[in-house]
Amino acid sequence: MQYIKPAFRNAFHTFTLSRFPLNPNPFILVSLPNLTFETFRRLHPVSSLSFSSMADGDNYAPSHSLEKQFEAFRTELEESGTLRERIRSVVSEIESTTRVMYATLLLVHQSRSINELLEKANSQIDVLKEKYKQLAQVLGGCSGQYYRYYGDWRSETQTVVSMLTFMHWLETGSLLEHQEAEEKLGLNNSEFGLDVEDYLIGVCFMSNELPRYVVNQVTSGDYDCPRKVLKFLTDLHAAFRLLNLRNDFLRKKFDGMKYDLRKVEEVYYDVKIRGLTPNGDSVGEKGVEG
Amino acid sequence: MQYIKPAFRNAFHTFTLSRFPLNPNPFILVSLPNLTFETFRRLHPVSSLSFSSMADGDNYAPSHSLEKQFEAFRTELEESGTLRERIRSVVSEIESTTRVMYATLLLVHQSRSINELLEKANSQIDVLKEKYKQLAQVLGGCSGQYYRYYGDWRSETQTVVSMLTFMHWLETGSLLEHQEAEEKLGLNNSEFGLDVEDYLIGVCFMSNELPRYVVNQVTSGDYDCPRKVLKFLTDLHAAFRLLNLRNDFLRKKFDGMKYDLRKVEEVYYDVKIRGLTPNGDSVGEKGVEG
Amino acid sequence: MQYIKPAFRNAFHTFTLSRFPLNPNPFILVSLPNLTFETFRRLHPVSSLSFSSMADGDNYAPSHSLEKQFEAFRTELEESGTLRERIRSVVSEIESTTRVMYATLLLVHQSRSINELLEKANSQIDVLKEKYKQLAQVLGGCSGQYYRYYGDWRSETQTVVSMLTFMHWLETGSLLEHQEAEEKLGLNNSEFGLDVEDYLIGVCFMSNELPRYVVNQVTSGDYDCPRKVLKFLTDLHAAFRLLNLRNDFLRKKFDGMKYDLRKVEEVYYDVKIRGLTPNGDSVGEKGVEG
Amino acid sequence: MQYIKPAFRNAFHTFTLSRFPLNPNPFILVSLPNLTFETFRRLHPVSSLSFSSMADGDNYAPSHSLEKQFEAFRTELEESGTLRERIRSVVSEIESTTRVMYATLLLVHQSRSINELLEKANSQIDVLKEKYKQLAQVLGGCSGQYYRYYGDWRSETQTVVSMLTFMHWLETGSLLEHQEAEEKLGLNNSEFGLDVEDYLIGVCFMSNELPRYVVNQVTSGDYDCPRKVLKFLTDLHAAFRLLNLRNDFLRKKFDGMKYDLRKVEEVYYDVKIRGLTPNGDSVGEKGVEG
Repeated sequence: MQYIKPAFRNAFHTFTLSRFPLNPNPFILVSLPNLTFETFRRLHPVSSLSFSSMADGDNYAPSHSLEKQFEAFRTELEESGTLRERIRSVVSEIESTTRVMYATLLLVHQSRSINELLEKANSQIDVLKEKYKQLAQVLGGCSGQYYRYYGDWRSETQTVVSMLTFMHWLETGSLLEHQEAEEKLGLNNSEFGLDVEDYLIGVCFMSNELPRYVVNQVTSGDYDCPRKVLKFLTDLHAAFRLLNLRNDFLRKKFDGMKYDLRKVEEVYYDVKIRGLTPNGDSVGEKGVEG
Repeated sequence: MQYIKPAFRNAFHTFTLSRFPLNPNPFILVSLPNLTFETFRRLHPVSSLSFSSMADGDNYAPSHSLEKQFEAFRTELEESGTLRERIRSVVSEIESTTRVMYATLLLVHQSRSINELLEKANSQIDVLKEKYKQLAQVLGGCSGQYYRYYGDWRSETQTVVSMLTFMHWLETGSLLEHQEAEEKLGLNNSEFGLDVEDYLIGVCFMSNELPRYVVNQVTSGDYDCPRKVLKFLTDLHAAFRLLNLRNDFLRKKFDGMKYDLRKVEEVYYDVKIRGLTPNGDSVGEKGVEG
Repeated sequence: MQYIKPAFRNAFHTFTLSRFPLNPNPFILVSLPNLTFETFRRLHPVSSLSFSSMADGDNYAPSHSLEKQFEAFRTELEESGTLRERIRSVVSEIESTTRVMYATLLLVHQSRSINELLEKANSQIDVLKEKYKQLAQVLGGCSGQYYRYYGDWRSETQTVVSMLTFMHWLETGSLLEHQEAEEKLGLNNSEFGLDVEDYLIGVCFMSNELPRYVVNQVTSGDYDCPRKVLKFLTDLHAAFRLLNLRNDFLRKKFDGMKYDLRKVEEVYYDVKIRGLTPNGDSVGEKGVEG
Repeated sequence: MQYIKPAFRNAFHTFTLSRFPLNPNPFILVSLPNLTFETFRRLHPVSSLSFSSMADGDNYAPSHSLEKQFEAFRTELEESGTLRERIRSVVSEIESTTRVMYATLLLVHQSRSINELLEKANSQIDVLKEKYKQLAQVLGGCSGQYYRYYGDWRSETQTVVSMLTFMHWLETGSLLEHQEAEEKLGLNNSEFGLDVEDYLIGVCFMSNELPRYVVNQVTSGDYDCPRKVLKFLTDLHAAFRLLNLRNDFLRKKFDGMKYDLRKVEEVYYDVKIRGLTPNGDSVGEKGVEG
């Protein structure tokens, strides 16, 4: 190695340093350079740096086979990317329909006519059904890959279930069954069904709505509501206890149901102790009569 | 209960609501400040109270149908739980086989005979193939649910790919193709294949091993190694650039490959500038001479 | 290697150091700005270099003694790993027994017959006792190491204590003593006892169940329950106050007991103010009369 | 229930509200009161609130037995509290001795005479030994409870091991064995030994010191140091690989050792490529000669 001009050496210096993006010692840069890697490049054109493959002959051309393979990957990734975009587009429509339904249902806390609200909310179910049909069509070409993209609409479906079960409960006082939920959404075929865990998580979300409902019903004068809700929630809680839940999201949601139960118990206690229950055995009056 | 002044009733009213320390609806307290339970009772005598929207009477028996349904859920959740345990057991064996292979391959950094190491590591591939066969059998009963449990072995498979591609590169200097990797693991059937993204992530992990390999090879006197690795990594990096990567894990891993490339360039620069490359064309001299 | 200007050498020097992007010793770059490797070489010719402080020559063979020692560690770590797995297996059985007991005891909030529930729950105590016996046997071989693995079943034991003390309180209205709890679980031998802190934490957990119990008892018409629970909880709280608690988990749990006490006081206040207590001495009337 | 004066009712109101420390609705407090719970207390002296136990007879006195039991707990908790304080006092002396040793050893990075530093640091070992003897004496009365309090000095002992092994390595170039470490600290009796995991963690900490040591040794002209350290660290890393580490702290520390290894490899690479190694086969010169 012979004499190298300082300026050029500095170029190496810069070159080297710029490779350490997290260099903690900016001080070094103070001693800096005026030549760049560009200069290095001009002096040593790429063509003069001959490369060969690791294999002892240099006669195989990795680039070609590599390129061909990655060309195939590109096509595949783009296809799955496009599919995903189509899924997301439908899911976003499901989400916005759900939001409309929820806005309607929330009025239940303001003592609006339940029948009217339910009618309005029910009209959205067919919209949802149509969306799930579209989703199934989008996924049509990739049988067996349902669970591959499934994470993309899972959370929205749980919300849908919470709406449907809440509405059904308002109508009938009972729990909308898994199969009934599938039918409402047109998901009752083998390929594209309603996952049981999602159904159960949706039911937990629905339970979270009940304490508020009870409070507002009592406020508006329905003193028998706490007893009915408590009965429903106690049964539901007991049914969940049958399941041997793993330590996962569903488990966590179910643990939360305990608090809903306690809150409803407290409201029931409140109306009971004041003798506000329909059968009229006012405990409050008792005290006075005694 | 006799006459109670409104002010007192308000106290009770507030009392009740204040039982919900996290009451999400403070609105109630604002809009009902002067109405009390007593007032409500007068407006809605107990007898007139009815759950118009809920099932009339208590004559439906939710407990039974509920219990039956949840009994079915229990069975289903237990089945999927058992399946998952069986999957995990096989995956843990895959992981420990991989650890053995990795311990062997690491010796490559100590300039041990590559042929010997490869022979030893290769002997584990059939073990892995057997494990993947077991995994396919475990999943046999649930066609179409491959992707449902897929997250349970995804990361292990990426590591397996990184081993296989590193070994193949040591042997041939070229990239083990996706299809070749599938064949080695016996995953080349339509139901249970090697996901392209996992293959690509595994390739990125393999790339992370190269800078260390180059440093140690130069230390032990192999001055041509950097050139070969640089050629390989440059081609690989360029091939990845063909892909339109989403903003996800693969993208992040690919971004890391850039650092591997830079480090290898640096080492190549080191040997080149000192004229240590086999053909002896010292860059330094050239630069001065040019 | 011929003449190289200091400036260039500095570049190399810096280069080397910059390989440590997280170099914890920036001081080096400050104190050695003008000294280069070349200078050092002149000052310390290669021949004079010696590891005065390290074993001279390479004639010690660390690999062998090292390997032998680590082989022993491997055995020891595997043994403790196996022991831990056996412990965890028993602990998981304790946990699932406890869950069954808890599911039974929860029915107390629905005004079921306490005797029946207690009988059912009591039948599980012998199962627990058997599990603790197994745990003692598993630990048999490692006398003096009780506290080494103790963290593995600590939390489960606290839950067990909370069940036992709740059941005992339902039966007798008094606190199950530490020694009685030990006897029920067969832990009354010197080697493997029930840690006092765990007993106390379990008692705190039990206290957390009382407010809900009181609310539901009053709802179902037992107006004397709040007075009894309040008396019990007041005494218990006072007893805890005797202890000089450190700033730890037990302390935190005890602090929570204060809220249980307040809630029960509140319910007692509710029944008292309405004259619902058995002896009929309505506070409200009294207050007015007084 | 008869007429109750408004002012008094407000008192109840306050009373109630003040029990909800997390009341999100401070608005309620605006409507507040001038009478307090004190008034309530004066009107209803404690003596007039008769309590009885849950047990049907009121003839058992829970307070007494409860108090007696908690009195025993108090004694026990205070004893263990005192013991803990005594442990902490010794441990804090161990920690400060270790700090002195570390300050001495750090000078090794500034090319001070190793022999002098080691002599100084070695003189502290007897101090440490004495402290561990004191610790054993403090724990003397509680045989079998070693692991109960063990967390209180665990981390300090790991640091002690890292010092001892670093010093031993500086002296001999080999790893201080577990048994030797125990002897140095006088821990070689069955009751109070040196936990293997702590020894191994200490060794990992020691490994973290080596990259910096190598950098500074090369800076001060010792070009053979990287080779020796690399040999030691490679052997150590391979030995650790024999262990089947659980997914815990030790595992994490061991994973970090990989980075120490890489850094030392890079420094070795640096001296090698510049022909600075003692055997004089300057690769740099080669290029010039060619």
